[in-house]
Parts: sequence; structure tokens; C-alpha cells
Amino acid sequence: MTAPTVLVLNGPNLDMLGTRQPEHYGHQTLDDVRALCERIAASLDVELDFFQSNHEGGMLERIHRARGSADAIVINAGGWTHTSVALRDALVVPEIPIVEVHISNIHAREEFRHHSFISPIAHAVIAGAGITGYKFAIEHLAAVLVPSEGNAARS
Amino acid sequence: MTAPTVLVLNGPNLDMLGTRQPEHYGHQTLDDVRALCERIAASLDVELDFFQSNHEGGMLERIHRARGSADAIVINAGGWTHTSVALRDALVVPEIPIVEVHISNIHAREEFRHHSFISPIAHAVIAGAGITGYKFAIEHLAAVLVPSEGNAARS
Amino acid sequence: MTAPTVLVLNGPNLDMLGTRQPEHYGHQTLDDVRALCERIAASLDVELDFFQSNHEGGMLERIHRARGSADAIVINAGGWTHTSVALRDALVVPEIPIVEVHISNIHAREEFRHHSFISPIAHAVIAGAGITGYKFAIEHLAAVLVPSEGNAARS
Amino acid sequence: MTAPTVLVLNGPNLDMLGTRQPEHYGHQTLDDVRALCERIAASLDVELDFFQSNHEGGMLERIHRARGSADAIVINAGGWTHTSVALRDALVVPEIPIVEVHISNIHAREEFRHHSFISPIAHAVIAGAGITGYKFAIEHLAAVLVPSEGNAARS
Amino acid sequence: MTAPTVLVLNGPNLDMLGTRQPEHYGHQTLDDVRALCERIAASLDVELDFFQSNHEGGMLERIHRARGSADAIVINAGGWTHTSVALRDALVVPEIPIVEVHISNIHAREEFRHHSFISPIAHAVIAGAGITGYKFAIEHLAAVLVPSEGNAARS
Amino acid sequence: MTAPTVLVLNGPNLDMLGTRQPEHYGHQTLDDVRALCERIAASLDVELDFFQSNHEGGMLERIHRARGSADAIVINAGGWTHTSVALRDALVVPEIPIVEVHISNIHAREEFRHHSFISPIAHAVIAGAGITGYKFAIEHLAAVLVPSEGNAARS
Amino acid sequence: MTAPTVLVLNGPNLDMLGTRQPEHYGHQTLDDVRALCERIAASLDVELDFFQSNHEGGMLERIHRARGSADAIVINAGGWTHTSVALRDALVVPEIPIVEVHISNIHAREEFRHHSFISPIAHAVIAGAGITGYKFAIEHLAAVLVPSEGNAARS
Amino acid sequence: MTAPTVLVLNGPNLDMLGTRQPEHYGHQTLDDVRALCERIAASLDVELDFFQSNHEGGMLERIHRARGSADAIVINAGGWTHTSVALRDALVVPEIPIVEVHISNIHAREEFRHHSFISPIAHAVIAGAGITGYKFAIEHLAAVLVPSEGNAARS
Amino acid sequence: MTAPTVLVLNGPNLDMLGTRQPEHYGHQTLDDVRALCERIAASLDVELDFFQSNHEGGMLERIHRARGSADAIVINAGGWTHTSVALRDALVVPEIPIVEVHISNIHAREEFRHHSFISPIAHAVIAGAGITGYKFAIEHLAAVLVPSEGNAARS
Amino acid sequence: MTAPTVLVLNGPNLDMLGTRQPEHYGHQTLDDVRALCERIAASLDVELDFFQSNHEGGMLERIHRARGSADAIVINAGGWTHTSVALRDALVVPEIPIVEVHISNIHAREEFRHHSFISPIAHAVIAGAGITGYKFAIEHLAAVLVPSEGNAARS
Amino acid sequence: MTAPTVLVLNGPNLDMLGTRQPEHYGHQTLDDVRALCERIAASLDVELDFFQSNHEGGMLERIHRARGSADAIVINAGGWTHTSVALRDALVVPEIPIVEVHISNIHAREEFRHHSFISPIAHAVIAGAGITGYKFAIEHLAAVLVPSEGNAARS
Amino acid sequence: MTAPTVLVLNGPNLDMLGTRQPEHYGHQTLDDVRALCERIAASLDVELDFFQSNHEGGMLERIHRARGSADAIVINAGGWTHTSVALRDALVVPEIPIVEVHISNIHAREEFRHHSFISPIAHAVIAGAGITGYKFAIEHLAAVLVPSEGNAARS
Repeated sequence: MTAPTVLVLNGPNLDMLGTRQPEHYGHQTLDDVRALCERIAASLDVELDFFQSNHEGGMLERIHRARGSADAIVINAGGWTHTSVALRDALVVPEIPIVEVHISNIHAREEFRHHSFISPIAHAVIAGAGITGYKFAIEHLAAVLVPSEGNAARS
Repeated sequence: MTAPTVLVLNGPNLDMLGTRQPEHYGHQTLDDVRALCERIAASLDVELDFFQSNHEGGMLERIHRARGSADAIVINAGGWTHTSVALRDALVVPEIPIVEVHISNIHAREEFRHHSFISPIAHAVIAGAGITGYKFAIEHLAAVLVPSEGNAARS
Repeated sequence: MTAPTVLVLNGPNLDMLGTRQPEHYGHQTLDDVRALCERIAASLDVELDFFQSNHEGGMLERIHRARGSADAIVINAGGWTHTSVALRDALVVPEIPIVEVHISNIHAREEFRHHSFISPIAHAVIAGAGITGYKFAIEHLAAVLVPSEGNAARS
Repeated sequence: MTAPTVLVLNGPNLDMLGTRQPEHYGHQTLDDVRALCERIAASLDVELDFFQSNHEGGMLERIHRARGSADAIVINAGGWTHTSVALRDALVVPEIPIVEVHISNIHAREEFRHHSFISPIAHAVIAGAGITGYKFAIEHLAAVLVPSEGNAARS
Repeated sequence: MTAPTVLVLNGPNLDMLGTRQPEHYGHQTLDDVRALCERIAASLDVELDFFQSNHEGGMLERIHRARGSADAIVINAGGWTHTSVALRDALVVPEIPIVEVHISNIHAREEFRHHSFISPIAHAVIAGAGITGYKFAIEHLAAVLVPSEGNAARS
Repeated sequence: MTAPTVLVLNGPNLDMLGTRQPEHYGHQTLDDVRALCERIAASLDVELDFFQSNHEGGMLERIHRARGSADAIVINAGGWTHTSVALRDALVVPEIPIVEVHISNIHAREEFRHHSFISPIAHAVIAGAGITGYKFAIEHLAAVLVPSEGNAARS
Repeated sequence: MTAPTVLVLNGPNLDMLGTRQPEHYGHQTLDDVRALCERIAASLDVELDFFQSNHEGGMLERIHRARGSADAIVINAGGWTHTSVALRDALVVPEIPIVEVHISNIHAREEFRHHSFISPIAHAVIAGAGITGYKFAIEHLAAVLVPSEGNAARS
Repeated sequence: MTAPTVLVLNGPNLDMLGTRQPEHYGHQTLDDVRALCERIAASLDVELDFFQSNHEGGMLERIHRARGSADAIVINAGGWTHTSVALRDALVVPEIPIVEVHISNIHAREEFRHHSFISPIAHAVIAGAGITGYKFAIEHLAAVLVPSEGNAARS
Repeated sequence: MTAPTVLVLNGPNLDMLGTRQPEHYGHQTLDDVRALCERIAASLDVELDFFQSNHEGGMLERIHRARGSADAIVINAGGWTHTSVALRDALVVPEIPIVEVHISNIHAREEFRHHSFISPIAHAVIAGAGITGYKFAIEHLAAVLVPSEGNAARS
Repeated sequence: MTAPTVLVLNGPNLDMLGTRQPEHYGHQTLDDVRALCERIAASLDVELDFFQSNHEGGMLERIHRARGSADAIVINAGGWTHTSVALRDALVVPEIPIVEVHISNIHAREEFRHHSFISPIAHAVIAGAGITGYKFAIEHLAAVLVPSEGNAARS
Repeated sequence: MTAPTVLVLNGPNLDMLGTRQPEHYGHQTLDDVRALCERIAASLDVELDFFQSNHEGGMLERIHRARGSADAIVINAGGWTHTSVALRDALVVPEIPIVEVHISNIHAREEFRHHSFISPIAHAVIAGAGITGYKFAIEHLAAVLVPSEGNAARS
Repeated sequence: MTAPTVLVLNGPNLDMLGTRQPEHYGHQTLDDVRALCERIAASLDVELDFFQSNHEGGMLERIHRARGSADAIVINAGGWTHTSVALRDALVVPEIPIVEVHISNIHAREEFRHHSFISPIAHAVIAGAGITGYKFAIEHLAAVLVPSEGNAARS
């Protein structure tokens, strides 16, 4: 059996991670996130595909290509989380499980960050665990994709 | 240095886990959750205190006692999540980090499950990852309480 | 065939029935309600289990035990009707038909009494018929549980 | 003492009962409802007047005539329940007790079916008990109109 | 110059005037209203056309016929005021000035009576002046239609 | 019997009547309104007291003095209609009937003009009849204060 | 195979088409609409049944009769679109596809015209295309009822 | 004449007073509150009954027993203030005057603390005066129960 | 140390106290309030400054002058409570503690009286305690300004 | 006279048509849509310009270029329909008629799909007719641009 | 040609500028504002009229007098911005361009400061630029009143 | 000291300025805006960086680069103002003062243009001053960045 592929998607402004509002997002950079994800993926025998874009169109097309090529998605959609129906519509195209990640606890911030267009179509939502949230997301998806006795989760 | 203690709290109806609405909550029981938590805690050198109650008053008093005796809280507050200000007020008494866990993805269910009185005072929120959410919560709190190089998260 | 069991549940303050606000609730007491229910149950060859509690936790656990031991529930949840998600969650545990009863016509009272967390999971709702509402609820459930030609209802 | 008269009113589309959306309304027809009502009325020594109309104007005028000629009203107003102030205004003309009946549990259906213009002026509301709801309504009104020891209800 | 014609329209339940809710509507009947209107019209050299219907369809068609045959409309639309878009749409057909009349002060009653679909297309609105409101409406329209020095109003 | 006194009150900006927004308020001035009111009052044997102020405090105190000295109030409160609780509170001090007048049809203008703090405590509301609305208001109050056979209104 | 029948329904005030508000509805009359529909139906080998009513009750009963006799419905419900639950309930009786048509673009008019009770149960909605909307509706239903290679649509 | 009894009720988390969020609640403990209340009561010749519970059911039953045994209630309902209809319903059982006390100024805190289910049935509400609010509440009730010349208040 | 000065402010219509709506405000006059305040102030060695105005501008300027001359404010802002941002803005000018007083329980009256622009900037809020509320307010402020062992409150 | 040009615009995710959610969008691809549009355009002597983009910026600039080069727009804006003010602003730049098309009936889907920023500036809106909606849109615009006797529509 | 006159209006509490909440309003006084405005006006050959009032009535009357005597208005309405319909109504009397100025950025403060009754009738709105906002307002109005090549703005 | 750099950002559709909706935006083009900004910047010894994009991604990345390279931002975000959380998030990255500019008075246009995601994080907001708003914004920022005696503003 071939290793499953997890596509990790990062939305707008996440390329500035570590620079912007450390009280919300901490001091680690997106390269740190990528390194963390790669380390976790390697340990779980999962292929990792890591992507960031500030361009909605580029993000949509990256998601479209996941149809047939990826087995699960981890997405931190940044500000688009709360505003982009187009992104939500793209995310249902691949028909694969999705975990929504937010570095900060969006539920504890401004009112407009409490609603997510992605959550209703996501498998799980992890917010406020810092960049460790990506780790949990990949672990969870690995367990869903390759159920083993130690991993048995909701499904 | 003594091992930190994580208090895992389970609210109403969680004693029926595995029986009730498996499409939302899966087939594992609260004993499975406890076993999972104990296994994780042991692996992380964390003391575990596991508690379930259907009685709000009992829950509040258990939380009060955590002040000075526990170092972090994992809480799945069940239906009280959406309705209990008293619970929220109790949770700030111990002045320790809190991770809110939901087995199902509450953001994808009825409208009245989208608001949580706990989220604004929580460190992190994990929903929809099944009982694995408890595992992630404990791991996250262990990393927050005992920062090490592999664990560095948001703080 | 053994007689079906109907569990009649009464929520907070109903132990004060006959004392409190007779313009809404009349002069009959909870003992009168019990007597009426027992008389109806006997006439319909139904087992009756009658319970009142002012303690949400006690009520939840009583409902949990109904799983496998009762065949239907009649519930007058009093003030919890409008506020308790935990109660709603408990009521789906036994997977048996529920009739919601209110002695007064809650739809004609304060705005906050117009919404019920129980109605969407109930089979039927009877409000304003005084304590006779319990009688109708038991008769309806008897007809649902033991359909006969005189009883044919919605199902 | 002469027998009291109960006027049973049926609003729009109820002439199609048994045909339309059986998952909500069951398979019994309006003739079955009428037969049931007549049987109950006869057993309670109550005069029955049974009426259906798809014409709001006809319904209003039928209700006007009830002033002085009927002693109580049972009404299933169908879709007008949620939209007709004119119907509500007509129903207060006769100054007699009203029981509102719905075959399906309107509280468990679309949001727009949760509000009733009739409920605030009704004595009682019965929803979801199938056509048996009419039976309960007539029994309740008989007890209100001719209080006897076995019937004592809210009043 | 021929006398202008004022069409006085009365909506649902107004045929019961004098019977229904005298605390809101007083003790005078619709015949009293007609007599009052005729007396006023005569004194102002205005033709009067007086109509009441409980049937929305009949009302709409009466309004349609006003196009070309009437010069102004006085309407007390009763409960339709708050619910009928069809009535509003009909009232713009004749392209003549409209005065909306309510016998009771609808602004001081239930919330749902505070919104009128007719007011935004009406010339004037008179509420709470009892049946004298009809008199004022006719006088106002007479002044609008046949401006004289004693009548000069807004236009 | 002495003649009753009607106090006619005019709120902010009404001193500019005839100048300001003639499409809403027409070309007649406040002196025209006063002349009209005096003419009507004289014809009805009513004492008239006419007042305008742009100062809320002055208006409140004028209303306070009406207690015991006036028998009815006609008020066009201008912009205060929609914003002044203090004015509403003052208007209940004299305990005399009130008619609210608006020269323009406020129900057909901006949303914020649709709510009036005065309407719920007013006897009648007349809007959109131009300055003739004052005439109707005085006539109505005269009929209420000195009921005669030609004047019989709601009471 | 017999020709399918399309029932074209027109609600209140549509008999005044061509007269009323030409800026919204144009200058063509309902006879023009009928002629257009007949021409299209003939060209598509579809039976046409054309109906207009200002009477809700008559409309409901016409729809009831469509059960078993018509194969599809085109409806321009006029003002009832936004207010009639009874009409919506009737429209599900025949269990045939429905296309909702509006001559004007209701989405660009008053706020209260933006909500339709019919749209959620309709197959398609066409607004603002003038009377040509009827043509499109019939063509669409013909394609749905008699799929051919040139007609393949959504189904 | 026997001394009146004032029942002082304290809801959830108030046993932690002095520990929890001193910026809102200060440093004094519930024992300090009790001592203060006893001192005031003694000085006013009032019997004092002081109770705290984290259990809603216990609180309800304590209130039920006040019927006939207490003459007035002072209640600081903590988080239940904003969520418990059951508590409100219990508080009307004894039919005695109630003063609602909050140590902090709830009107200046989170939005969800601005609504109280108790205020509409309370005699008076005191918020933000610290524990002195209890003193004022007892003094006020003493004046209401035993009116004297220095105490004459609203009643 | 010089005696602190408490400025007691009374808003619109409070000069009519004792006359207006005794069911809400009782029979005592503003002179009674002043006498009560003076008596309390004297007993607490506090300077009293007592002011009433129906003029918002006068009130604002009186508050402005309190900057540097008064040490605390008691304010019963009457109807301005719910509507005046200007008053709120003035009240923060002196930078001294404020207690908001209402003679009636505004939380139990009309919806529009439930919101106060002053509460969020007030130290404490006392409503429904009749004119005794002023006494409590002065006592509370005296304790805040001159903390003594018997007075220790929240600060 | 030269042939008019119709610009057909397709927003985000429409390049995946036929793949994504066939229950909403059917099995036909965007190439099928293009082929259909070209066939219709050819038959009507209309020039066709067909464009799809997942990039909002690209779409805006394509619309800008339509000013002066296209005569009408057909737009299926996908998810941007509900969220993009920028798109709406761009669409008014060319000052040409617009028809809004949706393949699925957006009015019957999630609440957030019921509002369109485009509808208020569109000539017509067609939803739920599958890809045939494009055909109707082009036909309608052809009739608007080149009115002929068979095409006379609203204008 | 005579120099145009700009009337600069300052609402409640602005006389306290420099004293009150410097974090919002800075340390400069109203005299500084006046000096700044005079300097700018002089440099632009504009007559300046500078006015402040805490009295709504005085402000309204000052605005009334601007009709015919001033050519433009700069207004910082302070707290009245959000509450006074009377002020808005006065501001349309002179029929001259208005610029609304706020020293602080009201859009970044409390929710109730986000709505202005003045903005919809203003030419321009400047908020948060400190007292320099007055300078910009005068410059803008000068450019509007005396268009020159360097000043050409929107008009 | 080196000259500060002001980055002037223009969002979607602003490249069409002068073409699109001149009643809102005037006849000047974006080149005119640039020329104006350059002239002002030169006169104030400020470096100017001028940018327009219809691509959100490009705009975000341009803003990211401002971190460390620009000292202030002027932004006219066009339609994104009301919809883009991503843009707001980007704007906090550089941690420099922002002035929000709108050519038209957005507060006087459609409801959906009244809310801005940018205003709460902006220093100042200028709307409706035409392209002169850019001039004011640059002048204001110059004064904030290089405070001089004539420029002292809010800070």
C-alpha cells in the first residue's frame, strides 16, 4: 500500500508568520511550520505537500489539483476562513477529509472571527494550539486514513 | 521538579459515550477515553485526574478544588458548553490553562452548538477529532507546562 | 406480550404544583398528576414510572437508565425546556418516543418560553391543556406503542 | 342543559390530507378526521360542527357565525397559522375557548412554522399527535365546558 | 365639473365591528361607519363608494375596478395591513391617492401590528381616532382632490 | 361648563416650517398652523394654547405645567418623536389624552422615522395629512372631551 | 407517449398586467403571456393549461387538481410569493417539478420581495426576464420532462 | 410582632469569593459577606438565613422552603442570573419581595451578563456596590417589611 | 482632611416626582429626596450638592464643573439614561466615581429602559429601591472615598 | 449593423464543473457550457466571448475591458456572488445589461447563498435551470439588444 | 465676489476639549481649534463663524440662522452624532454643504459610535485626524465653494 | 534624518476611476490622483510610493513589503473595505499608521458600504472629500510622522 498524501494549505498572510502579531501567532515562521509538518509526516509514513498562497485563485486551483492526487487536507485559511465561499466550494471538490487549523484561538478574538465557512465541511477543527495544531491535524488524518489500533478515533 | 497534573473533565451525558448517537460520537466509551488519557499522560510524565459528572454543582466544586492542585484542565463540557455561565465562571477560578475538547465537530451541527461560553477563556479548542482530541489536548498542555524544544508551541 | 413502560418526567419546581402561580398552573398538585397518570396507565395496560427532580444531574441519569427499561417518555421539563442542551442530549440516549407536555400554554407567555430545546426531538407537544395534557400524552404513546384500530395515529 | 357545540375548523390544503407529504401528515384523510371527531363528540355528548376551507374569507365568516352558536373551537389552520393576522382577529370574535391542533410537530420543522399567530390567543396547543390531536382537543374542550370530577383540568 | 368619487374599503372582520373587542374598536357598527361616511361625503359633494370584504381576492378585484372609476381610496385593511403584499400591489394599480385608516391605535398594540405594507404607498395614515378617522380621511382626500382655500393641505 | 383647553405642542425645527424640505412639509409656515388651529378651536369652543420649542427642557416643562391646566394635548414632536424617552415620560405627567401629529407620512420615509416613542401612549396618531392633521387632532380631542351626538368616536 | 401537460399559474394582480407599474412589468398583458405560452407549448408538443386567480383558495384548489393531471408547474405567484405558506404547502401536493417566474427582478426591488416561500421547493427560479421568463420556464420543463439530446439540463 | 426573616441566597462560585477574579469581586470572602449580613440583620432586628449552593436543585428547594418561612429574599445568583429560567420560576413560589445583588457591575462587563432572568421579578437590583450591596439589600427589605418613618421607600 | 463632596444629579421629569406615575415612582417628591440626601450626607460628614435639570445642556455643564470641585456623582438620569451619549461623555470628564440610581426597577419595565448608556461607566447601579437608592448610593460613595473598617467594599 | 457581443463570465470553481457535487451542478463540463453558448450565439447572430477565472483580479480586469467592447454580460459568479463587493463594483463599469445565472437553485441551498451582491444590478436572474440557464440568458440578452417582434420582453 | 462663510459647529462637551479623555481627544483645547480654524480660513479668504453649544436647542437655532447667512457647515456633533434626529433635520434647513468631523476615529470605538445620523446628509466625513480634521474640512469646503484648478475635488 | 515614505494603496476598480459612476467618484483618473499625491508629497518632503491592484494577493504582498520600508499607509481599499479580513490582517503586519480614504461618502450609500474592516485599525478615516481625501491623508501622516508645531494633532 502506498503512503497517503496530506496536503497542508496556508492562506493569506501566513508567509509573514513570526513577524505579525506575535501575541496571537507566536514567533515561529512558516518554515518552522513546514519543518514540523515534514517531521511528523515522515514519522507517520505520510507524504506531505505544503503550500502557501496569498492569492485566492492560486489556492483554489491548488485544491482542485488535489482531487485524485491527495488523500487529506489540512488548511489554515487565515482571513479567508470568515469570508470566502469560493474557498469552501473548492474544498468540497476533492472529496477528501479536511482538518481546519488556526494557530490562535479564533473563538477568543473579534466577533467576525467566530464564524468559519470551512468548519461545516471539515472533519475536525483545531484552534489555539499554536503551530502544534498542524501536528495534531496530520496525526488525526493519518489515523483516519490508515486506521490502526492505537489510532482509532471517531470513525 | 514534580510532574504536572492535568485534570480531564467530562460534562453531562458523556458517561453514556459509545451508546448515544454513534454518528456523532463514535463507539468508544468513556472508559476508553480514560484509558487513552492515562496512556498519554504516562508517556508524557504527567499526572492525570479524570472526572465525569452530570451534576453542574459537582463539576463546579471539582473545578474549584483544582485551584492549587492541578496545573491544567482539559474539558469536554457537553451540552453545558453552550449554556452555562456558571461553568465558565468556575473555570477561571484555578487560573490555569484550559483546552476545550469536543468529540464531534460542533461547528458542523445545529446552530445552537456553534457558540461556546468556554472558548473565549480557553487556550485552545479541538473539535471533531473524536476521542483523539483528548490526546491532543493533553499533549498540548504538557508542551505548554513543560516547554521543551520539540514541544515549543504558541507560548 | 409484556406491557410497555411509560416514564413520566417532571422537571424543576413541579413539586410545588398547586402552590405556585395558579393562574398559570391551576390548583392541582403533583400527586394529583401522578394519580391521574396512574389511572390512565392502568386503563391502558401500560406500566407507569413517575419521576420529579429539581436536580438536572439526577434527571439526566434517570433518563439514561430509561435506555432499555422504558418504552416512551412523557416530559414536562419546566424551566429547563428553554435552557438545557444537556437535557436534550440526554433525551436522545434512550431512542424512544417522547411527548413534551406543558400545563400552561407556553406559547402565550413570555417570549423566552416560546423556544424549546426539546420540541425538535419530540414526537408531539401538548401545551395549555392543564394536567390533562399528561393524560393525552400517555394515551398517544400507548397508541403509538400498541397500535390498535381505535388508536391509529400518525405512524 | 343542552349539549355544547364544538366547531372543528380545518384550513388550507387539509382537504388533501392523506395524499400530501405522508411523512408529515400520515395516510388518513379528512373524512377519517371527521369520523374520528364525530365518534368522540358523540361519546362526550357534544354537538360537532366540522368545516374545511381553502378560502380565508370563507373561514373568517364561518368563525364569525360561531359567535353565539358554538361553545368552543378546535382549529388546524394549516399554513395560515404562521401568516394570517386576519384569522387571529376573527378567532377572538366569538369569545369562546380555542384549541389549536397540528397533525405534524410544527416545532420540529422549518423555522417559519415555529411561530403561530393563533397560539397566544389559544387555550391549548397540540402538535404532532397525528389526527389523535383532534380527539384530545375535543376531550379537553368538553372537560372545560362541562367540568366534571374526572375532567377537572386547568380551569 | 363632476363630483370626485371616494372609494372606502374595509378589510377582514370589519363586518363584525361593534361586536368584536370593543376595548379596541368601540361599539359602533360598520353600518354606522357607512352612515358617517355618507353624511361626510354628501356635505363635501363627493361621491361615496363603500365596500367591505373578508375575501382578499374580492378586495383586489374591487380595487382593480377603481382604476378609472374612483378618484381616491380610504382603506382600513384590518389584519391584511400587516401581511398582504398582494393588497399593496393592487393598491398601486389605480394610481390615485390613498388614506390608510385604523380605528384603534395600532402603534400601541402588539408588535406585529406596528408594520404596515400599505403605509409606504399611502398619502396619509390615521390610527386610533375611532370611526372618526374615516371622516378625517374623506375630508383630507376631498381637500386634496378639490383644493380650496379652506382646505389647503400638504400638496 | 368651561371650555376645555387643548395644548398644541411643536417640537424642534417646526419653527422653520415652510422653509425646510417642502417636498415633505409643504409651504405653509408655523404661523399658518397656529392660525388654522385657532380657527378650528374657536369653531369648536375650545381654548387653544400653542407652543413651539427647539429646547427639550423647555418642552418638558411646558408639558409639566399642562397638568391641571390643559385637558388634551396635540403634539408634533418632530425629530424627538424617534429619540426622546424624556419627552415620553413628560407626556404621561398630565394624564390627559394625546394626539400625535406628523405633517409628512413618517411611515413612508427613512426606517428610523418608523418608530415613535410617543405612539404607544397616544390616543391617536395622524401622519401625512399635512397641516390639516392638526385640525383633525383638535376635532378628535374636542369630540372626546365634549362627547356629543355628532362627535361620538371610539370611547 | 402522450404530450406532457404544463400548468401555468398566475397569482394576484397579474390580470392587470400591462396596466400596472409598467416600469416593473412592461406593457404586455396577460393575454399576451397566454399567447406566448401557447405558442411555445405548441412548438414543443406540450399541453398547456393557463390559469390566473386573485383568490388564494381558488389557486390552492387548482393546484390540488394538478395532482395526477399535470406534469409540471410554472408559477408567477405575485405578492403571495413572499407571504403564503398555504400556497407553498399546496405546491408540494402534486409532486411535480415547479419553475418560479417573476416578470420583474424581485431581487432588485424592496427588501420584502427578496424572500420567496416558493423558491426552496422550486426546480428553477427566473426573475427579471420579462414575460420571456414564462417561455424559458416552459422550455426548461419540457426538457426536464422529455429529455432529448438538445435539451439535456441539470437532471 | 415577630422579627421578619430575610433569606440571603448565593449562587454558584460564590463560595470562592475572595479567591476568584479580585478585579471584579474584591478580596473579601463569603464568610465576610455572612458576617456583614448578620451584623446588619442584628442591627435591624431581622432574622437572617444565609445560604450558598453550587447546585441548582439545592437552590431551588431552598427557595421552595422559603414559602411561609421567610419574608424576603436577597439573591446573588452568580452565573445562573443569565441562564436559569428554573431559578426564576422558583423565586416566584414564595411570593415575597426579592432584591437582586451583584458584587460587580454586571452592566459594565460582557454582553451576556447584561440580561438577567431575575430582574423582571425583583423588587430592586443592586450591582457593583461590592459586598455592601448585600447590606443595602437587607436594609431596603427591612424598610419594606417594617415600614417606619425613616424607612419609607417606594411602597 | 476636608469632607468629600458628593454631587447628586437628577435628570428630566424628576422635578415632577410624587406627581407622575406613583405606581413606578411612589409619592415622595424631589424635596423629600433632597432632604433624605442631606440627612445622610450630614451623618457621613459628606458635603452634598443637589441638582435637577430638564435641560441636557444645563446638566452637561453642571457635570463639567464637577471636575475638580466634586469627589463623586450620584445620578438618576431619568429618560436620558437610555438615549444620551452626550451625557455619558460628560460623565467621564470629572474622572470621579459614579453611582447610577433609578427609583423604579427599570429592568422590569419596557424593553427600551433595559439599556443604559451610563451603566458601563458607573461604579455601581441601584434600581428599584425607591428613593432609598439615593441613600445607598451616597453611603457607598462615602465608603469608597473615605474607606474605613466598617465600610470596606469592593475597592 | 454589426453583431452584438455577449460576454459570458464564469467565476471560481466553474472550471471543475462536471466533477464537483453533481447533485447540485450536474455532469456537464464547462466545455459543454461553452459549446452550448457558442451554438446559441451562432443561431442568434451574436458574437460570443467566453471566460472563466478563479482569480478575482483577473475577472475584474476582464470586466473592465468589456467597457466599449461588449454589449451584454452573462455572469455565473460562483461563490463570489455572495461575498464580492469588488465584483459588483466592476460590473457597473461597462454600463451594459447583465444576466446573472446559477446552475443550481441557490435559493434552495444554504442561507448564505440566498443573498447576491449582483442581483440588485442585474437585468435578470436565472437559477436552477442547469446549464440551460446560460442559453436562456443569451436569448434574453439577444432579444434586449436586438428587439424584434418575437422577442419583445420587458423593455 | 464676497468671501464665503464657513460655520464651524461644535456639539456637547467639546468645550472641555483638552481636559477630557486625552487618549481619544488629545491635549489641545477648543480655543486651539478655533485658532487653527481662523488661521486656515484667513489663508483661504474664507469668513469663519465658530460656535459651540451643549444645548441642542441652541445648536438647532444657530443652524437655522445659517440659512442664507452661511455657505457651508463643518460640524463635530459629539455625542449627538449618534442620537439626534432633530439635529439632522436642522442641518438640512440651510441647504448648504456639510462636512462632518470627529477628532477621534469613532469607527474604532464603541459600537454605538459607529452609526451617525449626520453622515448620510454630509458631503464628507473626516474622523480620527485629530483637530487637523477641522483644517481639512475647511479646505475641502473652500475648494467646493470656490473651485480653482488646484482644488478640483469630487464636484 | 531621511524623508519618511508614505505608501498609497488603491484597491479594486480604482484603475477605472474617472470612467465608472462619476456621480460617486467624479471625473478625475487614477493618474490625476497619483499626480496630486506626488505634488503633495514633494511639498512635504515625503517619499511617495503609489500602487494599485485588482488582485488581493498582490495587494497583500505589497503591504507585507511595507514592513521596514514604508512609514505610513494611505489606503483606498474599494470594495475590499467591506469584505476582506485578509486585507485587514495584512495591514497590521507593517505596524505603521494607516489612513483610510474613500472618494465617495460611503456612509451615505448602500447599507453594506457602512461597515469597514479597516476602520478599527486605522488612525483616521476620510470619506467623501473626493480625491482631495488623499491629499489630506498624506498631510495628516506627514504631521504624525514629523510632528512640528503647526502640525500637532491627536498624538
